[in-house]
This record gives sequence, structure tokens and C-alpha cells, in this order.
Amino acid sequence: MPTYTAPVKDMMFLFEKLRDNKNYNELEKYNEVTPDLVKDILEEAAKINQNLILPLAKAGDENPAVLENGIVRTPPGYKEAYQKYIEDGWTSLSCDPKYGGQGMPKTVSAFFDEMLSSASLSFKLYSELSIGAYNCINHHASNEIKDKYLPKIVEGKWSGTMCLTEPVCGTDLGLLKTKAIKQSDDTYKISGQKIFITSGDHDLTENIIHLVLARSADSPSGTKGISLFLVPKYIVNEDGSVGPRNGISTGSIESKMGIKGSATCVLNFDDATGYMIGTKDKGLSAMFTMMNLERIVVGIQGLGISEIAYQNSLAYAKERKQGKTNNSKSSNGADFIIEHADIRRTLLNMKSIIEGERALCFWLSQQTEVSLYHPDEKIKHDASDYVSLMTPVVKSLFTDLAMEITSDAMQIHGGYGYTKDQGIEQLYRDNRITPIYEGTNSVQAADLVFRKLFNKNGDIINKFLDMVKSECESKNGKVKTFSKELNYYLDILSKFTGWIGDKNKIEKDDVSAAANDYLKSLGYISIAYAWIKILDVSFNDFNTNEEFYSDKINTAKFYFDKVLPRAEYHYKSAISGSSNIMNFKFN
Amino acid sequence: MPTYTAPVKDMMFLFEKLRDNKNYNELEKYNEVTPDLVKDILEEAAKINQNLILPLAKAGDENPAVLENGIVRTPPGYKEAYQKYIEDGWTSLSCDPKYGGQGMPKTVSAFFDEMLSSASLSFKLYSELSIGAYNCINHHASNEIKDKYLPKIVEGKWSGTMCLTEPVCGTDLGLLKTKAIKQSDDTYKISGQKIFITSGDHDLTENIIHLVLARSADSPSGTKGISLFLVPKYIVNEDGSVGPRNGISTGSIESKMGIKGSATCVLNFDDATGYMIGTKDKGLSAMFTMMNLERIVVGIQGLGISEIAYQNSLAYAKERKQGKTNNSKSSNGADFIIEHADIRRTLLNMKSIIEGERALCFWLSQQTEVSLYHPDEKIKHDASDYVSLMTPVVKSLFTDLAMEITSDAMQIHGGYGYTKDQGIEQLYRDNRITPIYEGTNSVQAADLVFRKLFNKNGDIINKFLDMVKSECESKNGKVKTFSKELNYYLDILSKFTGWIGDKNKIEKDDVSAAANDYLKSLGYISIAYAWIKILDVSFNDFNTNEEFYSDKINTAKFYFDKVLPRAEYHYKSAISGSSNIMNFKFN
Repeated sequence: MPTYTAPVKDMMFLFEKLRDNKNYNELEKYNEVTPDLVKDILEEAAKINQNLILPLAKAGDENPAVLENGIVRTPPGYKEAYQKYIEDGWTSLSCDPKYGGQGMPKTVSAFFDEMLSSASLSFKLYSELSIGAYNCINHHASNEIKDKYLPKIVEGKWSGTMCLTEPVCGTDLGLLKTKAIKQSDDTYKISGQKIFITSGDHDLTENIIHLVLARSADSPSGTKGISLFLVPKYIVNEDGSVGPRNGISTGSIESKMGIKGSATCVLNFDDATGYMIGTKDKGLSAMFTMMNLERIVVGIQGLGISEIAYQNSLAYAKERKQGKTNNSKSSNGADFIIEHADIRRTLLNMKSIIEGERALCFWLSQQTEVSLYHPDEKIKHDASDYVSLMTPVVKSLFTDLAMEITSDAMQIHGGYGYTKDQGIEQLYRDNRITPIYEGTNSVQAADLVFRKLFNKNGDIINKFLDMVKSECESKNGKVKTFSKELNYYLDILSKFTGWIGDKNKIEKDDVSAAANDYLKSLGYISIAYAWIKILDVSFNDFNTNEEFYSDKINTAKFYFDKVLPRAEYHYKSAISGSSNIMNFKFN
Repeated sequence: MPTYTAPVKDMMFLFEKLRDNKNYNELEKYNEVTPDLVKDILEEAAKINQNLILPLAKAGDENPAVLENGIVRTPPGYKEAYQKYIEDGWTSLSCDPKYGGQGMPKTVSAFFDEMLSSASLSFKLYSELSIGAYNCINHHASNEIKDKYLPKIVEGKWSGTMCLTEPVCGTDLGLLKTKAIKQSDDTYKISGQKIFITSGDHDLTENIIHLVLARSADSPSGTKGISLFLVPKYIVNEDGSVGPRNGISTGSIESKMGIKGSATCVLNFDDATGYMIGTKDKGLSAMFTMMNLERIVVGIQGLGISEIAYQNSLAYAKERKQGKTNNSKSSNGADFIIEHADIRRTLLNMKSIIEGERALCFWLSQQTEVSLYHPDEKIKHDASDYVSLMTPVVKSLFTDLAMEITSDAMQIHGGYGYTKDQGIEQLYRDNRITPIYEGTNSVQAADLVFRKLFNKNGDIINKFLDMVKSECESKNGKVKTFSKELNYYLDILSKFTGWIGDKNKIEKDDVSAAANDYLKSLGYISIAYAWIKILDVSFNDFNTNEEFYSDKINTAKFYFDKVLPRAEYHYKSAISGSSNIMNFKFN
């Protein structure tokens, strides 16, 4: 079974040294979220993840969630662990104190999301969607509904789901068929089938609050006729107690490649009572409040799984002897594989990506908080643009790179990496869902190039690139070598962006065909931007902790030498256009 | 379950139009292997793979091989299928008629290897190692042993294994501990444990012939004290009949991520009777006869799995509707996903890699035959150098790209790609062993840069590059556009090769750290070389079959536009050297 030590040190480094965002630091509500408090939280978080949750990963893989007589049973140990998990208040970490939450910012809760993803993605999913549902209800529902449902969700006694997908509509929600018929008491009767519903049913909570997209009987077809409904597994009585079963049944659960501990359900709604959330026919945009935050969390899942893959690869490389190095001093026998240049290269590849991602994510968490709570509308707006721009990048790139990293972890383990005993191949299988769910990575790329770069708020990508550029230029001293190099790639990205902008007017298929490449270029450069921030601190504070900062500087150097050049390949590959692709006859 | 139609048309195109190797065409023994004969063979091969073997893939995944009371049982249906398989003579395809084989060249048998890999890799492995054992025995054993063992192996009544790996030695065979003690009758008693033995035990054949590396009691430590032994599961009597059980038992079988139908065994040798093959203490080089051919076959496994992944992605893209294209004509509802630019790009990426690989492999098959049978020693030698150079490239690049292709196939299938029902995720899991076994891809890369580029035969890589360059220059007409582009990358590869050569003298760790990148650069360029051959025929014969040749030309264009640029990224990434990597402190 893989081992795991939460990277509290690196997280605290980010929290202490990279809160460089003036706007974030102006948020009064977080004045009391001090490094000392955060350290206490992260250390407690480390304990529960390392000790209680980590073993659930293997348990869930070996004993998947099952559907028995209409009831979904979670793997052995999940119930007890979930009980402890909610007793310790982990579901409430980022929620509003008004509903019993701890009111922690994303700059803290994102670290917890990462740890939990490292420990067990399957287990995480049971509470993750609850937070999504919480956010969506909190933003869009009436006070009556909020007061009735949110405290129980925050407490973790009830959980939540997102019911979007149907057999013929995944990416394309305009096709959805689930019907909502209005009743005389203003409630709705919901009927239809939803598939791929994560945590759609389970035995961990006393109620499950489904957020369901459905089409009201008198609404138009397509995406403009979709409303959002709250549909509880058990009807909630006036006094807040759990009442009779609603018209929802579990048709089946999916047998999957990974995340086997997580119940992925087919849910049948049969005249189930539902309550409309937000405005009629505007359900899709309400749901997307939840989806966007959720997409960033999926990126963090990739980061978390990458971290545990790295840790175990490093440990194995330090204990496995095989072959002699180029400068071997051992006259007999083999050297530790960590002495081999190629293994070291692979480990540094992992490490440089992971630490860069974590820093980028921390920057994004600050922007998210600014976008939600800053008093100045202009500042709030700019931050919101950055979050919106980075959402598809973090979701896609982090999950794709987690495939690379978990795959490299298997290679380092050799044949042992392919067997079940070591648990390394499970990381790879578990992570393999992340490039698919919450919108496939290609859907993210299309979202980026068609909706996020330039939109009604203006030219977002150039605002972002200008910010990165001016921040790079403002740096002095040894960081200059790195920021100059980044500048080379920023120029390429500017050209790439101009190309996308031009093609968007005359040949959209060129843009579609280039979307994945563009996302990757932007992503690698964004991670380099995060490294610039780390480097600036590392050079300035070098004397205070030489060991730590040398490690950072050398890891950054690897990233700039070996990883960042990928940004250019993606540009070269993309600009050949799409006419050959579109005209191709697939016989 | 995935469907499969063997690409006989593409294979016949290669066999008819790309037998451009003068030296191969001079091999008299293959005069009678005419296109008509080959077509008949491939059509029969298509039938057995499509109808009989394909269903075994799912059967094996759902009912893995098991060890019960010391006996390994293959999945349901394997026994019956294997019986039919050997009755139809498929094990004997490439073997010497002297021992009952059909004497087909690699230019034919490689196609069969590809089909069988597409249909079921697990099932394939039961006979694949037999061919490996056949080759090894045929090259190194005495006539007495050949006469005794080969006819049964060729017939498929007995199978073979390669027993190299031990718990502490995978890559590094110098560490091996299995002991061989010479007896008065010149046989040996073999004792030790071997792990990860593919088809180490099973119920398909009446005997299993293990080829075992072991150290004779009086031999030195390290790789220079290893000998090769033939150790049958059942002792073979003088008259060739199967006698008493030998001292070999199956300790356990591995529970793996994929190829679950294949039994991967821990074998315990306990005073088992063995017969030395070849020269004492030269076992490793004898085994490598088998390993080298086997490594190319592993590359072909990747190709075969890529092909079935592509076929099913294409079919799904043609029947799944989702979202509207940029130029959608449907006023209501969605378009087929094959109309989306990004899906088309992904499909062409697969197709351009697969067809290029198949053509490269066909060229390599011709070289292999020349290297074995050409009467002119110089020609034979040159061909052998090319085969030796390309072996690690084909093994590593084809298997890595098969990971990319099977992963992309999952993405195209969206959520359905992650569930077990569709069988797409199984392709990904099954293929995941190919970058690991027969020497991990990193070991291949080290082999390439340290032993294959420049060796005692001289400067092999530049001989290869000169050949590619002069062939490109000799082309006329429309192919020029492509050969010019390839030339750009050939220049990069020349620089890269010079860099490797220089660093090899002064800083071997630079070479080690660059090895994977170098292998990929060389690989992408070699596939482009194969595409040049295809293009030359396509332009010359265009009028004879416009549909077929347009398809080839446009697929090639995609490869040159979108895939080949990767060769340059790998160069840029590699030349930053290794000092930062080697000095890094992994704390």
C-alpha cells in the first residue's frame, strides 16, 4: 500500500511567503486566518488523511461499492471513517459560519482538498459533491431552502450530488430529457433517468440532496429551457426531520476502471418531488456556479494523486538497487536506482510539475477569494476573469499531467508497478477519471478558446499575459535569468493567442483543432509564472533557509530546462491549421 | 466489447508496394512467398482473430488465470481456442520447415503478431514466448536438443518461457542467484526462484519448456557467470514422450492491472533437471537472441492494441451525437462527434501514428530477414545493424504511443470509456505492461544511446541517417515537400546525435538523462521516414486508386504537421544536460 506524508511544509511555505496578492490581503474577513491557525489545521488534516483515510483507498479498490436490493453499500471502513470525518468538522471547513461552517478561505481548503485526493479519491467524492451542492444552494436558493438544507449539509449528516448527465447527453446538456411538471403547491414532479451520478446513493448519510437539471413541461428545447431542482432522497419535513422516501431509485452502479470505492449511479426519478432553485430556465448557469468551482477541485485531485505517486516513487528509488550508474563506486552489486540519471530526471519532472502546480493553485485560490469578497467591483471583476480563465487550464492540465506522473511512477516501480500489491497502478486507474469527468479535457479546451480568452468582459487573456509580463519584469537579481526565459515563451504565447483571435473570426475549426494545444501552452507558462513567484522568494530569503531554497531553485531550474519547452511544441503543432483535418474522409 | 476488423488491406498495400528493399528481394528462400499466398494467409488470420480470439480478451479480463491446488487454469474458452489455434498451424507460421514450420518471413508473421495483439494480448502471450524459446533453442542448442524439443514447440503441443527475473534482479541480471549444479551425466540441478514469468504455468499444453538463466556453481559473479538452461516442466523421455514431473512448482500468480488472462507466475526451481544451452557463462548473450526479437514483437503489441483502439474510437465517433460543430447545419439536436474538429484531430493522430508504425515495422521485418539470411556478409551486417538500432526504438516508442492512443480512445468515449462495459479501458490496462516488460522503456533508451548508436561495428546511427537522407533526396515530385520537412528534423537529429557522441566521452550522465528524449526524436523521425516511402508510392500510383492514396497522403500530412514537431521538443529538452539533475539532493 502506498505511504503518504502530507506536504505541510510546502503548503505552509506558500501560505506564509506567497500571499503576495495585495487584494487578497485586503479581505478583512480573513484577518484572523493566520499562519499559526493554518498550520494547526493542516497538521490535523495531515493526521486524519495519513492515518484514517489512506487505508480506505485500497479497501475501496478491493471491495467496490455495491448495489444490493436497491441499496448502495460503501466499502468496508467507509462508514466509520466518514463518521469521524464529519465529527471532526472537515465537511464544514470552507462553509459559511452562518450555517455552521468554519469559514476558511480556499487558500486553506484547497490544501485539504489536495491531501484528501492523495489519501483516497473515492472516499473524497462522497463529501466533495456536498460542498458543490452547498455552494450552488448558497448562491441560488431562497433563504427558506438554505435554512432548511444547508446546516445538515455543512455538518455532513446529509450529502449532495449533481445530476446532469443522461444516456444521450453528457457534454451537450441541451439534449436533456428529464421532465419537471409543476404542481399546485409550486413544487415539481421530476421524472427521468440520470447516469454517471457520483455518490448518487450510499449508506454514509441520512439523506442525499440531489441537484437535478430538468426541463419544465412548458420550457423550450435546447439549453435555454433547463431549470435546476433540489430533489432530496427523503422528503424533509417542516421541522427539518427526515420524512418519507422520495421517488428516486438506483437503477445500477457502474463497474469502472478505478475509483471503485465511489458509487457511480444510474438514478431513476419517477414523479419525485423537487423544488426549483433560482430562476426558471436558467438552471444551467446556476449549475455552473458549482461546476466551475468543482472543475478546479478536479485539477487539485490530479495534483493530490501526483503527490502521492511522487512520494512513493522517491521512496522506492531510494531502497531499490538495480544496475550500476555511470560513476558507480560499488565494485560488486548494484546501485540504488535513485543514483541513475534517468530515474532522477523522472523524479524531478514529477516534483517540478507538482510544486509548480501547487503554487499556481495557491495563487488561484487567492484570486477566487478576491473574486467572491473584494469590496471594489473592478478588482473583484478582474479576479473573477482570472479564475474563469484558469479554471479549464487547471482542470485539464493538472489531470493530464497526473496521468503522466502516475504512469512514470509505475515505470519507476518496474514490474512491481503493474501488480496490485504495491497500489501504484491503482493511483493510475483512480486518476484516469479526472480527465473525463466534470467535462472532458477537450471540452475544457473548447471552453477556454471560445469563451474564456475573449468575452463580454473584454480581452482577458491579454490582461493576464500583461500581468505576468509586468510581474516578471519587476523582478530583480538572480530571478532575471528565469524571467527572461519565461519571456521567450510569453512571446510565443502572444503569437499563439493572436493566431487564435484571428482564426476565431475566419475559421473556427482551426481554433477547435488547436484548442488542446493552446490550453497546454498556456498551462505550462502559467506554472512557470508560479515558479517565478517561488524563485523570487527563494533568492530573496535564501540565507534564512539555504537547504529549502536551494531545493526550490534547482527544481525550478529543471522545470524551465525540461518541461517549459513543451509550450513551444504545442504552438508549432497547432498552427498548421485544420483544413486537412476537416476535409479528411474517415472511411 | 470492442469490435475488430483486421487491416488486411493496409497490410497487403505494404507487402505489395513497399517491398522496396533490393536485398530482401534477393532472398531466394522467399521467392514463393507471393502476394497471393500472403493474402490468403492474412485473410485466414483475420478470420481466426476476429471470430475466435477477440472474445477471449473480455473473458480473460473477467475471469483471470488462477492458481488452484498448484495448477494454473487459463480463463474459460482459452483451451478450446488454443486447440483450434494450433490445429490451424498458427504457432508454426514463422518456424523452419525442418521442424514442421511454414517458414514464413517476418514480413508476414509480423502482420499476424499485430492482429493477435489486437484481438487478445493475454491469449497471444501463451504462444508468443514459445516462438521466443524456439528461436533461442534453434540458434544455440545442440542438434540433439533441437530434434527433441523443436517439433513439439512448433506444433504448439509444448510451449516455452523465458525465466530471467528474480526478486532482486529485473533490469540488472548480474545480480541473479539461481544456481546450477553439474551432475555426473552432464545435466544440471537448477534451484532458485524466478518471478514475473509469463505463461510460467498453464493448462494449454502438455509440456512447458523453460529457458532459465542460472549461475553454475563454479562461475564468477556478475553477468559473466550466467549460463542458459533448458528446464522442462515434465522430463522428456528418450522417445520424445512426456515423462515424470520436474522439480518446478508455481509459487503464486500475480494479480495485475491488465493482461489478466495471462498467467504471470512465480516459479520455484528445486533441484530441477536442466540442460545447458550454448556455451557456459555465455547465457546472457544467448538469451538476448530471443530478447531482441521479442522486443520488436512487444512494439508490435503496442501497434496492435493501438489499431483496435482506433477502430473502436472511429466507430463510436460516427454513431455518437453530442454538441454542435462550428458549421453545424442541424437546427435541432446534436451533430455526430466525428464532425468536431478536435475529435477528428485525435482520430488522425491515432491513424497517422499507427499506419506510419506499421510501415516502419514492415521495413524492419525486411531488414531482419536480410540480417538473417542474405548471402553477402556486408549486406547482412548492415541490415543487422539497422535491426539492432531500431529494436529499442520500436519497443519503446510504439508501446508509449499505444498508451497515448488507448488513452485518447477513452477520452473519445467519455464516461463510457471509463466503465468496464465498453472494453475500451481494458485496452489501456492491457497495453500498460508493454512499456514495462522485456526491459522497461528507459532501459531500452539506455541501450540505444550507449550500445546501439556507436559500437564495435562503427557509427551505426550515421549510417542510418545517411541512408534516410539519401533516400529522401532521391525522391522526386510532390513527395519533395515532405522530404524537405523531414530534412529539417534530420538536421536536428544530427545535431542531437553529435551532442550525444560528445557527451558520451565527457559526461555520461548527460547522455543517460537525455536517452529517453533521444529515443523519441529518432523514433518520430523513423516513422516519418516510413511515411516518405508510403508517400512516394502514393504520388506515383495515385491514378490507380485515388481514394486509397488520397487517404494516405492526407494522413501523412497530418503526421508531418502535428506529430513530427515533437522530435524538436525532445532535442530542446535534452540538451540542457544533467548537472542540475545529478547534484539535486532528494531529501
